[in-house]
Amino acid sequence: MSEMKIPYKIYLSEDEMPKAWYNLRADMKNKPAPLLNPGTLQPMTREELDGVFCDELVKQELDDTTPYFEIPQEIRDFYKMYRPSPLVRAYCLEAALGTPAKIYYKFEGNNTSGSHKLNSAIAQAYYAKNQGLKGVTTETGAGQWGTALSMACGYLGLDCKVYMVKCSYEQKPFRREVMRVYGASVTPSPSPTTAVGRKILEKDPNTTGSLGCAISEAVEVATSTPGYRYVLGSVLNQVLLHQSIIGLESKIAMDKYGVKPDIIIGCAGGGSNLGGLIAPFMGEKLRGEADYRIIAVEPASCPSFTRGKFAYDFCDTGMVCPLAKMYTLGSGFIPSANHAGGLRYHGMSSTLSQLYHDGLMEATSVKQTDVFEAAERFARVEGILPAPESSHAIKVAIDEALKCKETGEEKTILFGLTGTGYFDLYAYEAFHDGKMSDYIPTDEEIARSLGQLPQVD
Amino acid sequence: MSEMKIPYKIYLSEDEMPKAWYNLRADMKNKPAPLLNPGTLQPMTREELDGVFCDELVKQELDDTTPYFEIPQEIRDFYKMYRPSPLVRAYCLEAALGTPAKIYYKFEGNNTSGSHKLNSAIAQAYYAKNQGLKGVTTETGAGQWGTALSMACGYLGLDCKVYMVKCSYEQKPFRREVMRVYGASVTPSPSPTTAVGRKILEKDPNTTGSLGCAISEAVEVATSTPGYRYVLGSVLNQVLLHQSIIGLESKIAMDKYGVKPDIIIGCAGGGSNLGGLIAPFMGEKLRGEADYRIIAVEPASCPSFTRGKFAYDFCDTGMVCPLAKMYTLGSGFIPSANHAGGLRYHGMSSTLSQLYHDGLMEATSVKQTDVFEAAERFARVEGILPAPESSHAIKVAIDEALKCKETGEEKTILFGLTGTGYFDLYAYEAFHDGKMSDYIPTDEEIARSLGQLPQVD
Repeated sequence: MSEMKIPYKIYLSEDEMPKAWYNLRADMKNKPAPLLNPGTLQPMTREELDGVFCDELVKQELDDTTPYFEIPQEIRDFYKMYRPSPLVRAYCLEAALGTPAKIYYKFEGNNTSGSHKLNSAIAQAYYAKNQGLKGVTTETGAGQWGTALSMACGYLGLDCKVYMVKCSYEQKPFRREVMRVYGASVTPSPSPTTAVGRKILEKDPNTTGSLGCAISEAVEVATSTPGYRYVLGSVLNQVLLHQSIIGLESKIAMDKYGVKPDIIIGCAGGGSNLGGLIAPFMGEKLRGEADYRIIAVEPASCPSFTRGKFAYDFCDTGMVCPLAKMYTLGSGFIPSANHAGGLRYHGMSSTLSQLYHDGLMEATSVKQTDVFEAAERFARVEGILPAPESSHAIKVAIDEALKCKETGEEKTILFGLTGTGYFDLYAYEAFHDGKMSDYIPTDEEIARSLGQLPQVD
Repeated sequence: MSEMKIPYKIYLSEDEMPKAWYNLRADMKNKPAPLLNPGTLQPMTREELDGVFCDELVKQELDDTTPYFEIPQEIRDFYKMYRPSPLVRAYCLEAALGTPAKIYYKFEGNNTSGSHKLNSAIAQAYYAKNQGLKGVTTETGAGQWGTALSMACGYLGLDCKVYMVKCSYEQKPFRREVMRVYGASVTPSPSPTTAVGRKILEKDPNTTGSLGCAISEAVEVATSTPGYRYVLGSVLNQVLLHQSIIGLESKIAMDKYGVKPDIIIGCAGGGSNLGGLIAPFMGEKLRGEADYRIIAVEPASCPSFTRGKFAYDFCDTGMVCPLAKMYTLGSGFIPSANHAGGLRYHGMSSTLSQLYHDGLMEATSVKQTDVFEAAERFARVEGILPAPESSHAIKVAIDEALKCKETGEEKTILFGLTGTGYFDLYAYEAFHDGKMSDYIPTDEEIARSLGQLPQVD
């Protein structure tokens, strides 16, 4: 059995690491729909986007035909600080489950930002620096994206202004402190530093903020400060492009050992991890070279794929950003308190939405306490304390492995373990103390929110 | 230049991982002095120790002639979940410092316990399980050791009772929560669950606890509960033996690339990391096969090596544990509040103490704010957010690299990066806010504490 030769962890050598990102859109017959200008409802032009994003990133955002983008040497050097990330054979989990399935996971948590977000943060910061910009602005909710961007900017000597949702700023002082280590300025949002922030504060001085408001502030600062641009950690095509490094490394490692996954599973919030993990596999599927079962896992509290609508919608609750065609619950949808902050997004990447719409992947939703049960089960046998977001994928991977136990099938399962839960211990505490909510939105709530969708056609 | 071929991170393959721990004492001419029974002041016998520790661990503790102990297959399998740990070439730090020195660090933080402690925790838990015991007890201050032991016990299905110093229990709820994920029971100490705890609480119901008291409680429970033993994360010979995996992996990786360190640097609290890191290198030095400059780094607030006395002393403040001959500040010494909790120990491993006494290694102490300055400098270029303990080694590595910059010498520096600082962000906050103390004990304070040393000869 060649099976026996597979190590617990597969690390590619530096020479084996991908030298180009893969642009999944190039192989899609039905391309994702373009972003629309929120004022004119016409497709955003390159010129319009240039004012918000760096030039090179706009190019990547709009290009749906070039299959590969070379990764600049400087980014590849940065990647070497924390990549290749290990592809882990979950021998211990398999044994604990007593399943004939072979489980693999690509672990993206071995860096200080604690997640895959760093893969795109360094790329976006690099292009900003390369364009001679002084700095970038962004928003952060749970703080993983803000941390990743701070690290990238600290490394390149680029100024980094993070608008952090006020309640997170106060409840997650540790995340804020990590960003300070890397030299970022972190402002609780809403803040008096912007017009939109002042307006909101005037209306409600005690507001705890929202992601939509933080986005509006970050965009305002970027577009009104010379030498600054706005950057975003998910949803966008450019982000999925950079995150393809996850899937490319996974595929190289699996190919090396002659392993082919039957099922690929990833958690889905805005889609950055899932889009990156599945990229080269979906590419083969699109080109008719191979077939894979691909499953997106979302929280039952925020079920964009499984209960949302495929339509044009605003990317932000503030309705200042472009519209994207995507599976959405409506930009006014407010998910119930869920500890997987990275998955509390009303919409979904346009690329993944199109693929799902075309029947090329599945989606499923899982309840919060089930997710934490799976997380703890995983932690005890595989050692790693997973992030709540990542644990959505763990839950479904375990379910699929248990199905194999029933049927006796030796399926190969690959899932994305996006990050660690070191900053999510209040959530684990709530789980241990039986204080975790499993609230699922009613049909009425979702219908109400979807009733507010903008009229586009 | 073969130099150019060295990757950023060197990972050994599973086949290259050490299959035996190295027992440094076997090569020492002057053996470390034996532990003494606190009652009789006679060397502790195997029988006396058997009541406290597992049989196999007592054997390892007392054996100062066998050079290698085979690592059981089950432990090697567990090691594969998070080892080999990377040996990192600090290219980015070198460039930032503009030094001709070549800097390497062995990074032990890529596991959920966040430090090297897991290397010994799994070994101690394994031998307890193998002896048919039901569980183990221990104390934890900052929480790294308790977390590591919880992970090991959770994996083996062994009960784990952790006595956590009450102020840490309250101030570090996250650490406590991680231990709960792994199924450990965590009790704030002093507690009403033990005789010694009740006695202390009766005297002072509002006490915030101490490590000495937590040790006393853990030992009481271990020795009075059938099927339980006590385990300890540092200081002991057995712990240094298990931690030799750090140095052995480092040496195999360096030998593979034809690299020989000139200077080896490690932080020193009880000595578990330093003793493990230097083991095979010190072995060569003892056997006259090679020479290395070896530097122990301790906090100026708790300077056992640099300002302590080489004498028999109690290992715990409660004076219930055996006496060890070591560099000590006196078991009654209370270090000023220092954020490197893992280095706040009055004594030092007997083995390292003997080596230092025999002039085979150097020691230096560094101030807290200098340590955090070095930590932040490191984090910004190397990405990793270091633990305050580890940052003591970073500080001296940077100093040595800067000396090379002055002299133009191309020295090779190896240091131990023991762990990550994800649970130390209050410390980073104090540093950023200028609220960090640099208190150094006065000569009078140290003399007063040393005046209380037990009379042994």
